[in-house]
Amino acid sequence: MTAAATPSRLDLDPGSVGLVQTEYVTFAEPPEEMILTSGARLGPVTLAYETYGELNAARSNAILVVHALSGNAHVAGRNSPDDRKPGWWDDMVGPGKGLDTSRYFVICSNIIGGCHGSTGPNSTNPATGKPYALEFPVVTIQDMVAAQARLIDHLGIDRLYGVIGGSMGGMQVLQWAVAYPERVRHALPLATTHRLTAQGIAFDAVGRNAIMADPGWRGGNYYGTPGPAHGLAVARMVGHITYLSEEAMRRKFGRRLQQEQDDYHYGFDSEFSVETYLDYHGKGFVGRFDANSYLYITRAMDYFDLGADWGGIGPALARTRARFLVVAISSDWLFPTIRSRKLVSHLQAAGRDVTFVEIDSSAGHDGFLVETEKMAALIEAFFAPDPP
Amino acid sequence: MTAAATPSRLDLDPGSVGLVQTEYVTFAEPPEEMILTSGARLGPVTLAYETYGELNAARSNAILVVHALSGNAHVAGRNSPDDRKPGWWDDMVGPGKGLDTSRYFVICSNIIGGCHGSTGPNSTNPATGKPYALEFPVVTIQDMVAAQARLIDHLGIDRLYGVIGGSMGGMQVLQWAVAYPERVRHALPLATTHRLTAQGIAFDAVGRNAIMADPGWRGGNYYGTPGPAHGLAVARMVGHITYLSEEAMRRKFGRRLQQEQDDYHYGFDSEFSVETYLDYHGKGFVGRFDANSYLYITRAMDYFDLGADWGGIGPALARTRARFLVVAISSDWLFPTIRSRKLVSHLQAAGRDVTFVEIDSSAGHDGFLVETEKMAALIEAFFAPDPP
Repeated sequence: MTAAATPSRLDLDPGSVGLVQTEYVTFAEPPEEMILTSGARLGPVTLAYETYGELNAARSNAILVVHALSGNAHVAGRNSPDDRKPGWWDDMVGPGKGLDTSRYFVICSNIIGGCHGSTGPNSTNPATGKPYALEFPVVTIQDMVAAQARLIDHLGIDRLYGVIGGSMGGMQVLQWAVAYPERVRHALPLATTHRLTAQGIAFDAVGRNAIMADPGWRGGNYYGTPGPAHGLAVARMVGHITYLSEEAMRRKFGRRLQQEQDDYHYGFDSEFSVETYLDYHGKGFVGRFDANSYLYITRAMDYFDLGADWGGIGPALARTRARFLVVAISSDWLFPTIRSRKLVSHLQAAGRDVTFVEIDSSAGHDGFLVETEKMAALIEAFFAPDPP
Repeated sequence: MTAAATPSRLDLDPGSVGLVQTEYVTFAEPPEEMILTSGARLGPVTLAYETYGELNAARSNAILVVHALSGNAHVAGRNSPDDRKPGWWDDMVGPGKGLDTSRYFVICSNIIGGCHGSTGPNSTNPATGKPYALEFPVVTIQDMVAAQARLIDHLGIDRLYGVIGGSMGGMQVLQWAVAYPERVRHALPLATTHRLTAQGIAFDAVGRNAIMADPGWRGGNYYGTPGPAHGLAVARMVGHITYLSEEAMRRKFGRRLQQEQDDYHYGFDSEFSVETYLDYHGKGFVGRFDANSYLYITRAMDYFDLGADWGGIGPALARTRARFLVVAISSDWLFPTIRSRKLVSHLQAAGRDVTFVEIDSSAGHDGFLVETEKMAALIEAFFAPDPP
């Protein structure tokens, strides 16, 4: 970069990785398609990915970041100097940060089934020349990870120094450690579970129902039309409630009315500031996320059951070779601490090297994204005995 | 009743109040309309109500049951011998039951704003000859209780032996005790709060958004059309998740697939039994509830703030003259025990006679309806020192 006459937004980010470019890799060209968990074939497959920092000569310092439901490959920095916001985990990834890009080569790719550059339901189906829509095959966490493994091959990396992610990202971390035991040195599943509870499935089902009940959804064939904007917004609203703790909501909004409103309006428009917040985030999501992707990704979460392919969680975890850092957020009620503890006891029963920390935070499930300082300190301490 | 040749469903209910009839009272005929909290006028107002047992000569044994969001006046018994199910709290109300109809005169009325016989948005607007729809004024918990007081006048009762209800019913109990201190001897607010938290408002907002986003809603003017069936079903699904504890869902459904399904279908139809349950209850609700009522009633819950009219919760509770039995359900996360404890400490600070019990139950918010045996024992012990 050269100093520009117009001030760049990059100046706003001290310790940033700076300007980054999203890259793309395509594989599984027919007739060598990926065979998915369901038995369906998918190809060609493109993954959008970004990297930060430098791969060392021994190729031993790569950390794969795996994202949650609404994430994408753009973890840190800005894709253009005018970008309104940096990547989704910019506080964590950069020189001197928790995932220190002066030491590690950090990689993140958008999942298959996603809508930010990787092959998903809004990609063109080569068989028809139109968007896949619901002809896109259902993908699983296993499939997402299998695709990531192809990217890691492409980058010439045998073994990852670490795989880290929260929520659905944590499911991918676990799947990596079990499916590719020799390729993962450190596994860091955050605010996650090895399988969803009934309540988790239920919230996913509500989101899908809201989308599919919207006439704008048109059985998934809404590309080129406004699409199921209302349904997707409602799904996102439900999501946001589950991402925040009751306490966080109370502190953030309480029963306050929106700005400049003194008394009740006695109507049904948003009046409480918590309503305005949900409205804003619901509608904002519509512009940046594909409703069909929401269906596919939540379904992948529902289906995930780490032990299922290996005769149980015990045999599955017995395969792993990684050191584990399992982190829970004390006020997370969507992926509560008890689910992490359950995972930890399975890991211990399997004789694995596991560190467990519950971060004391009122942030709720979102804590895995916002408690970056605490998380960074934990990660540094966890990596210290076994450097690249 | 005489013995019928065809077996009556009443035979299924030992200890039932038997056949009951819904009655109606109309008041507030123009120009004497009710003046609502909002300042709007509403009249005439009809309340649908039922009574069970006999009012004693001293008129001192009347207990008013106040219902929650989806309830109605039909608490116990059957309205016809063919009724598929008895009233919504049949386990609690009847001879020898928790609210013993051989001792008490039990009354329940459908709230104003409701859709089961009382004046609400689906009632005919006398000004237009058409259903009110959104021309129905926003009603508050205060208004609901003011209307109930008119019914109690009509029944010739000065002072109620008790007022009991859970969830939004509990809000009405509290409002009764504060607004009509001389008319309430025992107040039994169950699984409730004196004002919703941000999280509670947020869940209500999601339900309303789901309804209003459904094109079938037509700005509320859907009467005579299929209406916002999908939106209302989604609202009800969200509700059902909040009524059950995570543990109750786990026990009831776990990750089980629906009957006769061995493996994943890799699609978006309901597969997990928890999905089938939500589907069933969401769709079933559409046939028996008016979507506009859902908007009005949830808004009344949002607005409720017991202390607001009296300069704070302290002065409000200082007005009361009732003995209080506050009951919380240990696994209720929608109206958690901490909210009841908060209420109890306000009552104590105001020098009120209050008994607090947390029922140990995994049923979640639904516990106030299903833990009838425990609840009945509590109520009996609470009433014992101060009989009618």
